Amino acid sequence: MIPSSLPLRADLRGEEPYGAPQLDVPVCLNVNENPYAPSPEVIDAIVQHVHDISGTLNRYPDREHIELRKALSRYLAQESHVDLPAECLWAANGSNEIMLQLFQAFGGPGTTALGFAPTYSMYPEYARDTFTGWQTVERNDDFTLNRERAVKAIEDIGPSIVLATSPNNPTGTPLSMEDTLELLAACERTQVAGAASGVHPILVVDEAYIEFRSADVPSATTLIAEHPHLAVSRTMSKAFAYAGARLGYLAASQGIIDAVRIVRMPYHLSAVTQAVALAALEHADEQLAQVAHLRQTREETKQWLESLQVHGNPIRVADSQSNFLFFGTFPDREFVFNELLKRGVLIRDVGPTGWLRVCMGTDEEMERFRDAFREVLALL
Amino acid sequence: MIPSSLPLRADLRGEEPYGAPQLDVPVCLNVNENPYAPSPEVIDAIVQHVHDISGTLNRYPDREHIELRKALSRYLAQESHVDLPAECLWAANGSNEIMLQLFQAFGGPGTTALGFAPTYSMYPEYARDTFTGWQTVERNDDFTLNRERAVKAIEDIGPSIVLATSPNNPTGTPLSMEDTLELLAACERTQVAGAASGVHPILVVDEAYIEFRSADVPSATTLIAEHPHLAVSRTMSKAFAYAGARLGYLAASQGIIDAVRIVRMPYHLSAVTQAVALAALEHADEQLAQVAHLRQTREETKQWLESLQVHGNPIRVADSQSNFLFFGTFPDREFVFNELLKRGVLIRDVGPTGWLRVCMGTDEEMERFRDAFREVLALL
Repeated sequence: MIPSSLPLRADLRGEEPYGAPQLDVPVCLNVNENPYAPSPEVIDAIVQHVHDISGTLNRYPDREHIELRKALSRYLAQESHVDLPAECLWAANGSNEIMLQLFQAFGGPGTTALGFAPTYSMYPEYARDTFTGWQTVERNDDFTLNRERAVKAIEDIGPSIVLATSPNNPTGTPLSMEDTLELLAACERTQVAGAASGVHPILVVDEAYIEFRSADVPSATTLIAEHPHLAVSRTMSKAFAYAGARLGYLAASQGIIDAVRIVRMPYHLSAVTQAVALAALEHADEQLAQVAHLRQTREETKQWLESLQVHGNPIRVADSQSNFLFFGTFPDREFVFNELLKRGVLIRDVGPTGWLRVCMGTDEEMERFRDAFREVLALL
Repeated sequence: MIPSSLPLRADLRGEEPYGAPQLDVPVCLNVNENPYAPSPEVIDAIVQHVHDISGTLNRYPDREHIELRKALSRYLAQESHVDLPAECLWAANGSNEIMLQLFQAFGGPGTTALGFAPTYSMYPEYARDTFTGWQTVERNDDFTLNRERAVKAIEDIGPSIVLATSPNNPTGTPLSMEDTLELLAACERTQVAGAASGVHPILVVDEAYIEFRSADVPSATTLIAEHPHLAVSRTMSKAFAYAGARLGYLAASQGIIDAVRIVRMPYHLSAVTQAVALAALEHADEQLAQVAHLRQTREETKQWLESLQVHGNPIRVADSQSNFLFFGTFPDREFVFNELLKRGVLIRDVGPTGWLRVCMGTDEEMERFRDAFREVLALL
């Protein structure tokens, strides 16, 4: 309860804190975590790294987190076959903070950020918290980007930020390289509304789930060297199985990184966070060991869901290159959500009406999901 | 170098990232750290706590960080003799983030935050990053609050945030309880300009250095129960000797905490940060063990500085209830700063012209500071 005498921003009155319910449920398939815990070797490395810096905790951390940026550069070389210097990398407390910093630097009153709906439900909050306008263009019915509408909106609106998501959340839809290049070209020829002449939008590609893509889909990071208006946001929370460590990062031209450095809070990244992230990056192969299996689980679960029917209609499952599936439609999705929850399985009721999102758990968790879902389907 | 084609906010063009230089110097007395490293017992506790949560790092942390808020509540009960429930506490990545969240919730275009100059040089950046107006009222010549001017400015401006600092940075000046109550009364009877009727400013007291005060100075946290418009910001970076862990916290009415919860990024505080903060709070006595000695160092250093002269004038040293001293004036403070740096001693050139700030180090560091400063004085 926020008393009316408090000078809360008028547009925040009645708003709720963002976030999926944190419930104590046996099977949590609601926030797209990697279900596999760090191995004993990785835990040892974490503990050792933290031990090594503990004696310096009375001192401020390296504001520029150089060692971590170098390690992220090495990781991208390995994961996306891209050669970016540490100056083109930047880390923060989750990709949330990366996005907030981008919006703080490039957004603000009078500017617009443009996204492609349905998409990640935090984007309007970054915009709200930075007084940036938020507009969306509808995707195609299969949730792929509608390139024509997207390009027209960029040209018509002149946003300062174009925000594409690959794979998209909550739909799992990847952005093709052709889509990315077309969006970049549109940004590079469009003037930002209200800005000085020669100012063009940045394209932010949110690759939170990129490690779950098929091997033949390149990352947008491969385009950074040639495109100074491209920023790629990533995270260790998903495939990297490190949601609790809160480490998001940004790969972009040095100009974009330098812009973010102006608005970042000094010492935003603790010495412990830096140490813990370094420990995991040194064991990237182990942290990512289950990604191939989760991809396989996704494909099998997709086939299984598509074999089912609701009221005589086959269930639709969006093509996903992520660790979750978006499926529907249900006349009353809240009923399905709640009945699954009663059976100890928490998924997510998010996105367009009638659709649900489930993330890939362990084999045991997925079995429990299938059992519960079969029971719920029988109730419909 | 930020290319002019990037849509950087116009008011950020030419701005530099905030922060004192991070130089590799033998004696660092520039960022008001506690010079005493964690003890082996505390290091063991840190490592144990991190070990205990490492196996869950694939999962998101507790968004509401309840255990930590309870521990902070217990700490305040011990340190400031105040009984506040966990619902009246909130933590973030440094008091920087606490302040940013307060400005995000209560600031914004059309609002004003009011401070008392000279004061902490980050405040205008919180305002800039949230599009909040920033105005200041000059303190008295001895850097105490000018109560009459302060109250008049609150009444004239109708700010949404009044930001007082106790002890003040860079001057070390405490805010008396009478000052705090007078500011609170002014806030409680003043209407925020442009807001709905009955909306009054919040008073934010920044108590980053409060543990260094004399025993007879109460903390503003003792007023929270009676004053729902009061917010007190604190940190574990200073007396608590934990700058590297980045743990700031807020004590305030539940209404203010709930307002901050709306704008906080979800999962802003990592599981590791929560664990590491809990470890240190369980050893609060050890972490704070050197505070009394640092107070004594401050008083001795003050007397020593006051015994010296610049061009026949005694050096002035502001009364300080913090772990640093603000002293001057020097016709060319940059010369003094640079000559000290040449001698391996890094202090801070900040605040009004001619003044310098030095923070209290170990006995050995202070001896080196005195030796270096004597040599530099001889050059003037």
